[in-house]
Amino acid sequence: MTTLIKLYGAPVSTCTARVMTCLHEKAVDFALVPVDLFSCEHKQPPFLAKNPFGQIPVLEDGDLTLFESRAMTAYVAEKFKEAGTDLIRHHDLKEAALVKVWIEVESQQFHPAIAPIVYEYFVAPIQGKSPDQGVIDANLEKLSKVLDVYEAKLSSAKYLAGDFYSLADLHHLPYTYYFMKTPCASIISERAHVKAWWEDISSRPAFNKVSEGMNFGEK
Amino acid sequence: MTTLIKLYGAPVSTCTARVMTCLHEKAVDFALVPVDLFSCEHKQPPFLAKNPFGQIPVLEDGDLTLFESRAMTAYVAEKFKEAGTDLIRHHDLKEAALVKVWIEVESQQFHPAIAPIVYEYFVAPIQGKSPDQGVIDANLEKLSKVLDVYEAKLSSAKYLAGDFYSLADLHHLPYTYYFMKTPCASIISERAHVKAWWEDISSRPAFNKVSEGMNFGEK
Ligand SMILES: N[C@@H](CCC(=O)N[C@@H](CS)C(=O)NCC(=O)O)C(=O)O
Ligand SMILES: N[C@@H](CCC(=O)N[C@@H](CS)C(=O)NCC(=O)O)C(=O)O
Repeated sequence: MTTLIKLYGAPVSTCTARVMTCLHEKAVDFALVPVDLFSCEHKQPPFLAKNPFGQIPVLEDGDLTLFESRAMTAYVAEKFKEAGTDLIRHHDLKEAALVKVWIEVESQQFHPAIAPIVYEYFVAPIQGKSPDQGVIDANLEKLSKVLDVYEAKLSSAKYLAGDFYSLADLHHLPYTYYFMKTPCASIISERAHVKAWWEDISSRPAFNKVSEGMNFGEK
Repeated sequence: MTTLIKLYGAPVSTCTARVMTCLHEKAVDFALVPVDLFSCEHKQPPFLAKNPFGQIPVLEDGDLTLFESRAMTAYVAEKFKEAGTDLIRHHDLKEAALVKVWIEVESQQFHPAIAPIVYEYFVAPIQGKSPDQGVIDANLEKLSKVLDVYEAKLSSAKYLAGDFYSLADLHHLPYTYYFMKTPCASIISERAHVKAWWEDISSRPAFNKVSEGMNFGEK
């Protein structure tokens, strides 16, 4: 008997959403175990025993406990490589290498620019602060440069790593989804190929199941 | 005939050093092709055609061109998995998953804290600025919390992902090497297990070959 994968997290959380989307793409059953961030459950000993950094999500597969959302998606994509969408191009070393490149681009170039903007619009208000326009502007400038590279790349290939949807595209979904609800959304939609790519990847059924629950900051 | 791997970069650069260290661990021959950052060779069209983000390093293996240092190490560790040190535990899905977890910890928790400190001590002076103590202090606080987690982890296992050296440890080498030359080095050496781990990983022959050339900011 195989044990059911448990994902500790919250549907509104970007990093939880990243892993849930991957599990849906791979058609893997899992149980979402809610963690209450508002009561700081993630900073209490039982949760810290699972993730010493005190952050969601955490994935448990039998006696294996994983933290860091991008490590979980890579594990799920590898363990279930024959099921659902092939997210890592495991039959082709070169395509697999290009998936790795664009996974790193998301992690090292895109995320550090988009995350502070999403934070200012969604988290700062909850903390009673108004969004810091200086932080937003500085990161919009960084993000624009990254998106210029994406626009060029996506004019010659349908997805970031080539003409196939992969984990590299998937990793962009949760932050971009919240970003598209901010007044800055035009920097995506004014770039024709980035816009088409966004419309394509954000309308995949696996993500639609997840984005339903991504109503952070809404009543 | 197999083509020789080409690595475009500079021996003093942390990200180049990360990939060189991996190539040495795997006993893979390669040619280092120097890129002159001071004349901004990396912002000129011929280099931008290889990496549109205009950063070193770039790896070429035949007709495959890769950027992002951590994507290169993952590619090299996978392609040459039977040669040299097994850096990704490819025979064991669980160990491989833990390597992925700690690779992400370096990328998402450790790097964002240590990189600005190294930047302030090594790059700011070259630009005629003195190190910004506010930036240093804020990041030292973040880095200390990360190192507290490492200290606990390394008291029960010899390396980050378990009792085996892996890509997760290797990725820490270049930034920590420069960090140890700063006045902040004590936050490593005052943690007994982190100190022992650092002494172990930084004395591996593959890294010694690389650290010889890491004399950025020295005459
Ligand atoms: N690099 C981590 C980041 C995890 C993260 O930032 N989680 C957020 C929710 S999206 C969290 O737990 N925030 C609460 C906190 O950091 O205290 C990952 O990718 O899993
Ligand atoms: N995330 C990239 C970062 C590369 C990077 O920051 N390279 C530096 C040298 S260590 C560089 O090219 N700096 C010059 C610049 O960014 O203009 C990687 O891991 O390869």
